[in-house]
Amino acid sequence: MSHVYKDYRPPWIEEKPPDRSFRSIFKWGDPAAYKHPNERLYKLMKKTFNMTDEDFRKPFEIGYDPVDQEFPIRMKPEHMERFKKIVGEENVSQDLYHRLGVSYGKTMIDSMRLRKGIIENVADLVLYPRSTEDIVEIINYCNQEKIPIYVFGGGSTVTRGMEAVKGGISLDMRRHMNKVVAFNEVDQTITVQAGMQGPDYERVLNEAPNNELKAKRRYTCGHFPQSFEYSSVGGWVVTRGAGQNSTYYGKIEDMVICQEYVTPTGIIKTPYYPAMATGPDLDEIMMGSEGTFGILTNVTLRVFRYQPENRKKFSFIFKNWDEAMAAAREVMQAEIGYPSVFRLSDPEETDVAMKLYGVEGTIIEKILNMRGYKPMERCLFLGWTEGEKTFATNMKRKIKKICRKYGAMYTTGYITSSWEKGRFRDPYMREDLQDFGIMIDTLECAVTWSQMKAVHEGVRSYCKSRPQTICMTHMSHCYPQGANLYFIFIAKMSEIDDYLQYQTGILDHIQQYGAAMSHHHGIGKMTAPWLEHQIGKNQYEIFRVLKNHFDPNMIMNPGGTLGFDLEEEQKRNKIRK
Amino acid sequence: MSHVYKDYRPPWIEEKPPDRSFRSIFKWGDPAAYKHPNERLYKLMKKTFNMTDEDFRKPFEIGYDPVDQEFPIRMKPEHMERFKKIVGEENVSQDLYHRLGVSYGKTMIDSMRLRKGIIENVADLVLYPRSTEDIVEIINYCNQEKIPIYVFGGGSTVTRGMEAVKGGISLDMRRHMNKVVAFNEVDQTITVQAGMQGPDYERVLNEAPNNELKAKRRYTCGHFPQSFEYSSVGGWVVTRGAGQNSTYYGKIEDMVICQEYVTPTGIIKTPYYPAMATGPDLDEIMMGSEGTFGILTNVTLRVFRYQPENRKKFSFIFKNWDEAMAAAREVMQAEIGYPSVFRLSDPEETDVAMKLYGVEGTIIEKILNMRGYKPMERCLFLGWTEGEKTFATNMKRKIKKICRKYGAMYTTGYITSSWEKGRFRDPYMREDLQDFGIMIDTLECAVTWSQMKAVHEGVRSYCKSRPQTICMTHMSHCYPQGANLYFIFIAKMSEIDDYLQYQTGILDHIQQYGAAMSHHHGIGKMTAPWLEHQIGKNQYEIFRVLKNHFDPNMIMNPGGTLGFDLEEEQKRNKIRK
Repeated sequence: MSHVYKDYRPPWIEEKPPDRSFRSIFKWGDPAAYKHPNERLYKLMKKTFNMTDEDFRKPFEIGYDPVDQEFPIRMKPEHMERFKKIVGEENVSQDLYHRLGVSYGKTMIDSMRLRKGIIENVADLVLYPRSTEDIVEIINYCNQEKIPIYVFGGGSTVTRGMEAVKGGISLDMRRHMNKVVAFNEVDQTITVQAGMQGPDYERVLNEAPNNELKAKRRYTCGHFPQSFEYSSVGGWVVTRGAGQNSTYYGKIEDMVICQEYVTPTGIIKTPYYPAMATGPDLDEIMMGSEGTFGILTNVTLRVFRYQPENRKKFSFIFKNWDEAMAAAREVMQAEIGYPSVFRLSDPEETDVAMKLYGVEGTIIEKILNMRGYKPMERCLFLGWTEGEKTFATNMKRKIKKICRKYGAMYTTGYITSSWEKGRFRDPYMREDLQDFGIMIDTLECAVTWSQMKAVHEGVRSYCKSRPQTICMTHMSHCYPQGANLYFIFIAKMSEIDDYLQYQTGILDHIQQYGAAMSHHHGIGKMTAPWLEHQIGKNQYEIFRVLKNHFDPNMIMNPGGTLGFDLEEEQKRNKIRK
Repeated sequence: MSHVYKDYRPPWIEEKPPDRSFRSIFKWGDPAAYKHPNERLYKLMKKTFNMTDEDFRKPFEIGYDPVDQEFPIRMKPEHMERFKKIVGEENVSQDLYHRLGVSYGKTMIDSMRLRKGIIENVADLVLYPRSTEDIVEIINYCNQEKIPIYVFGGGSTVTRGMEAVKGGISLDMRRHMNKVVAFNEVDQTITVQAGMQGPDYERVLNEAPNNELKAKRRYTCGHFPQSFEYSSVGGWVVTRGAGQNSTYYGKIEDMVICQEYVTPTGIIKTPYYPAMATGPDLDEIMMGSEGTFGILTNVTLRVFRYQPENRKKFSFIFKNWDEAMAAAREVMQAEIGYPSVFRLSDPEETDVAMKLYGVEGTIIEKILNMRGYKPMERCLFLGWTEGEKTFATNMKRKIKKICRKYGAMYTTGYITSSWEKGRFRDPYMREDLQDFGIMIDTLECAVTWSQMKAVHEGVRSYCKSRPQTICMTHMSHCYPQGANLYFIFIAKMSEIDDYLQYQTGILDHIQQYGAAMSHHHGIGKMTAPWLEHQIGKNQYEIFRVLKNHFDPNMIMNPGGTLGFDLEEEQKRNKIRK
């Protein structure tokens, strides 16, 4: 995005956060990287939030202070000694900076708390386990001594997934549990440890012919969440994640072949087969357990042939949301295969996207206006097909035909390429905005086609009922039966309680209008108060039965995750703890 | 298949079994329909089994006797009265013919027992429930009184799925629980009651524009198991079935959107969303429970556009099994979409298929021999693509290219059409063979590509270690990671103990060589002694925890199903009970 401003340009922060600062914990992504709003977006914010250049003179709550408070360790010294014995002294840390770093993720209130220097819900000790055997010993000891266990994978949770509400220990899986365990090119499967980070995983597959995999071909993992750069394979699995290409490659559940978990009750190792009719599906029981049943140590996944050269990008502008949705549904139900990236922006997001991707004010926009694709009505649909070359080409042709039938104008792959360039970096803007008291956050949910309009209108109208609020929505991760709806809201807001009240209202409306509380972010501690109502009492009881089996002493990710130890007050008032 | 024989033609039975006869229960399929071995196959059997025309003069154990034995009802009259009160007198039967009819399925030993007039493991009472409410009342009462409950859907089990080992009641779902509950064309989903039969289900979808669905288009269910004609939608779901077109449409698990079960602990109703990240997958917990957790009352499934005009049939002959397997794997991993029917026969099955489909002795066979595609080495691969027209056409072209690369000769869609005509009717031959003491049966398993050769060779070599035995194998239901291997064995054998001993050996070998005990038939009571070893002790414990939750009094499909109440001796010796 262009850094050139014609008029006043706020002093966006570009330097790497100071070592051991709060900012170094809450800042998303590559410490040295940034992405600023371009001038158009800056002006939109000023206008929307009634702000002036004056409001953007000096960033505040920027978290430059070092993490050097006193914060008590509430763990008996004998426990600490035991953990040092299990994993080795060098693999235990009681440094508050490390403890804080693994206890918070990227949930909006994490960053709000850290900007204000609020420290709470922090693990007493960080452990860096080296192996499944280490984890077995740790869990056995914790189970015996009733010490809470949290797990840190990549740190990208937006649901307070691994927040150490009850103290205890947190296992940071990044240091050692990050290796390839096995690769089977005949079956196109790979087994990796849970702490492997997304980019490392994709790299090892892309470069498979030239590394220890000694493969005949290059492969891809097919899983690219927006958090890709700082997410772990294990995190994807235990939260039931989805990548931006999931319409073609599937959610992570569709890629997992088998898994190994260490639970207080023993090791769970699911079998390695392509399909089965041998009772309930064990993988589907363990996935989505978010650390409350046990710790995922390694996972075997499908991999796919890497053929980026076959990608066929496209973008279209539709006259309105209804026609765009109808076209999207038609694409998904037409039996032509599924596209890979598939993203339809509603009018407000389209408007912002045209600013972001530099379409506003160009000849393209003029043509659009002339042809009746009006601002705040028109919708941008972008994506690409992939797979084998003729397969991808044929699908793009069919998509074009369908979109035209619904009145769309083809706007080439140019916008799609702009989107692709920014797809992991757009969230970096969060820091710039928050530096000046503007909150940008997202919520997502899964909806059937028949319910889509009601959910979009209902949730959006709640979001917009707050004055001076931007609410952009897009539909992505599509299925023949429905899709994910993704809400992005931007408001002038920097107080935690304001934020929580607003967020609670959005979640209430998502639920009320008939969407699943999460399509791919998981439940964590944040959405947990809604979960039982979401799936119903008898169904929720099944979760509880499993929990009691795996973790009778409630030591695994305690403090509300998936709602297992929510207190009545939390359920009623949906408050955080 | 031709009924014209040049030489001696055995007196194959063609008449409808006598009313209320044993044969009317064990005969597979349409009572009035039959399919005889053609002369080539007849001669092959004579040769293989060392039999002469003399052995085929008079069919025996044909089950023409009426079911009119005395067989005790071990249920208290007060219970019977209560059931009559719940469902109405007209919906209760204590007729032994009905009791026997719902207690046995199409497992080989069912037909062996019935041919010999052996009656055992029969429900005391048959109930025809009218609604979910009826089923709730029935289960509550049975739970209170500890009365065993079995369920009959379509009767096509080959795993002793609903055999009423402990007596009690059997719910025959066919009479009332067979209706469409809801249809949502926007979402392309339908909700049907569990007792709906396959052909009725497909018909209502195919004719959707002209019936009560009032649809804009025609649809297909996409699920066509060989047992299609006499299988129920509920049966597909609770056993995790797969149809012959599953390579394209997926297994039944891939089609189920949500379900309703009545369990002793309460009603389980899973939510209606296209995808979720809200904890463990409830549908995947209930599917495969085979009546041991509760009774499936209705299910919501994806449906697909019905476009049979787009099917592109193909068949190929490969020089050998290794090259054929390599090509099949390449097709599944090439990212060209997936074919629909996809069936690769090993050399022995190819040999029989060429007899069955009339290729033997034709010009095609001469060309094959001439070009080096030798008998008992060559492999037949047949199938079709479907979906949108250009999608299906492109995929067929790609499949051709891949098969040629692996040395295959294209043999047109002619053989495929022959196979298609017989695809639901081939099993009708079982009766003809058994009428003369020849057993034909099947076992199937799921295997990864890397293990495929070992499983094929290991199991086949056990099958063939019995002298004078035909063992045909095909691979079908393919995935990028592996496929289903399907073994068909034919031997002169009519004694139950001989059969059980042989079958036990095959199952042992399937397990020993690394395949899953079932890809789509489920576990039932037959394979149950192998299950715990298959999935491991800790994993099996999860099944047990779920079972104890849903059915603490062990009234749901008791007597070994999924291994929950197997006795030690059964586990050790794998004996039936």
